[in-house]
Amino acid sequence: MDKANRYPAARLAEACQTRLVGAGALPDDAAQTVRAMMHASQLGTDSHGVRLIGYYVDMLENGGVNKRPRRQFSPTAPATGRLDADFGLAHGASYEAMDHAVSLARECGIGAVTVHHSTHYGAGGAYALAAAEQGFVSLVLSNSDPAVALSGGRAPFHGTNPIAMGAPVRDRRPWLLDMATSSIPFNRVKLYRSLGLPLPPEVALNEEGHLTLDATQARFLQPLGGMAYGHKGAALAGMVTILSAVLSGADPDPIMTSTAAAQEGHKPQNVGHIMVAFDPTRFIGQESFEAGMRDYLDMLRASPAAEPGVPVCAPGDKEWEEADLRAELGIPVDPDTERLLGLA
Amino acid sequence: MDKANRYPAARLAEACQTRLVGAGALPDDAAQTVRAMMHASQLGTDSHGVRLIGYYVDMLENGGVNKRPRRQFSPTAPATGRLDADFGLAHGASYEAMDHAVSLARECGIGAVTVHHSTHYGAGGAYALAAAEQGFVSLVLSNSDPAVALSGGRAPFHGTNPIAMGAPVRDRRPWLLDMATSSIPFNRVKLYRSLGLPLPPEVALNEEGHLTLDATQARFLQPLGGMAYGHKGAALAGMVTILSAVLSGADPDPIMTSTAAAQEGHKPQNVGHIMVAFDPTRFIGQESFEAGMRDYLDMLRASPAAEPGVPVCAPGDKEWEEADLRAELGIPVDPDTERLLGLA
Repeated sequence: MDKANRYPAARLAEACQTRLVGAGALPDDAAQTVRAMMHASQLGTDSHGVRLIGYYVDMLENGGVNKRPRRQFSPTAPATGRLDADFGLAHGASYEAMDHAVSLARECGIGAVTVHHSTHYGAGGAYALAAAEQGFVSLVLSNSDPAVALSGGRAPFHGTNPIAMGAPVRDRRPWLLDMATSSIPFNRVKLYRSLGLPLPPEVALNEEGHLTLDATQARFLQPLGGMAYGHKGAALAGMVTILSAVLSGADPDPIMTSTAAAQEGHKPQNVGHIMVAFDPTRFIGQESFEAGMRDYLDMLRASPAAEPGVPVCAPGDKEWEEADLRAELGIPVDPDTERLLGLA
Repeated sequence: MDKANRYPAARLAEACQTRLVGAGALPDDAAQTVRAMMHASQLGTDSHGVRLIGYYVDMLENGGVNKRPRRQFSPTAPATGRLDADFGLAHGASYEAMDHAVSLARECGIGAVTVHHSTHYGAGGAYALAAAEQGFVSLVLSNSDPAVALSGGRAPFHGTNPIAMGAPVRDRRPWLLDMATSSIPFNRVKLYRSLGLPLPPEVALNEEGHLTLDATQARFLQPLGGMAYGHKGAALAGMVTILSAVLSGADPDPIMTSTAAAQEGHKPQNVGHIMVAFDPTRFIGQESFEAGMRDYLDMLRASPAAEPGVPVCAPGDKEWEEADLRAELGIPVDPDTERLLGLA
């Protein structure tokens, strides 16, 4: 993205909103999708940023998502609820589910809301951050279509099943984690393809289920931990599947409609998410928690680095740094997305 | 352990109970410690099984744990609570906290209880299983003393910070995960030392913070993900620290008293745990959840293996198989522990 043109966030958001509404999205739904994409674009996670506009437009135009979803939230107990996203764009449903989880946590100390009949929600960190900005510790999980082998397997089984989490920090921006449970995301494979470079070892498999370094031959991914410790990555992916899909009643990863089939409108996916919010007030206390986070992070950043000049960092550190840079310089947009947004 | 003598579970449990009470533990506390150790020994996790009796006896005799703890549970909201373990043996406190989390989840759909002023709780899977056996999905996290480098770091920072989780499965034993967020536990380093074998690559560091294959030189561990993806393992360790220690008010890992110092009685640790229970009844429903788990696991076990004859498996599969074997053949006990228990 080094040579890409840069745009101010507001202009980019407006162009995305126009494009989504043009493709048939309800304005309110489109606004939440834009909010989630802009979160990723602002923090430098371009794989989940405005680059996804083409994918969402295809889904809207081809019937991969429901343009007129009737979302339904059902409280199920004092601290829990379920949200039926009715196969619409997932972002509005996800923000809504996290809002409910935060409200439930305000009353009960913790709140959990599952989402079913959902679609691709982009970067889970967007929803984790929404809770952290209100002072809550949040956990956000989603399953996805099969793209990652089991440990010792030779076929895709789990999705990349990301784990996102946020936590407020006194006088600082939140601690923010958003990671796939594979070593690398499939977008990285595409990047290596376009650069003509070999892949790192033990991250991807070919059609026959053998490890490959050839990005053009890579079809799916190894779980985090590689050949020796991939059982741990696969177990974490299973944790995500159980909490986001089995518990919610969404499709478990191995039988989920592929992203490509949904994009072409053959059949919508039935993705599941779970949003959990913890109220620090009901544990050690809000101020103590936020101060404790600051102290923990101060210790972390002071921990000695293996390479002088490459300090250790916490989840979110690089992203917030990039956000500052992009606030000043604008957000880089690749040429395809520029065209699609009518910016070029 | 191939040549070790084997003992029936009941006889081993009785010997452990006698030894702990002999070292000054209250009979009820000792019984819960025995229950947790027997969980690990029965499932084949010998590192956290009865082998730990020597460590707990030292802690009791040297003052590393409080022999007469006054545990105090404080409800803090309809779905949450805190448990002050008063520096006693951690197992009774952990089972009690999970019991409270399950009770809270029965009322509220989800329940979360943190534990502070606690000590080494052994295998987190023991408490996760206790909830799963009652039909709940459970998440159990604990921090521990510094033993794992940060990604790009050259000093121990996080503990091995395990993640445990349980989920009930229709007509089967629960799905059960219990994994450290480092690639290997430090006990594995000791095993390689005793066998005179080189370590696997990228799992351990020496005194100077450089990677080493020499088990005698290894002082601390790399996070899950090795050199290239260790930022993910370190982030997961941080997730555990935040939820179990910062939220509970326990000591964060980098300032926690070392296990060795606690064992010698210099100062007790202030370990933190968190127990979360989800009631499937309040989500997709108990029967649907348990059937969904069975279907998910059937698909998983039917997924093709890379090596014929080495089928893929789910967390807990190998452990339950070993439990069947040990129920028949008895539990192997190493010579040191045999002596300590007066069995030899």
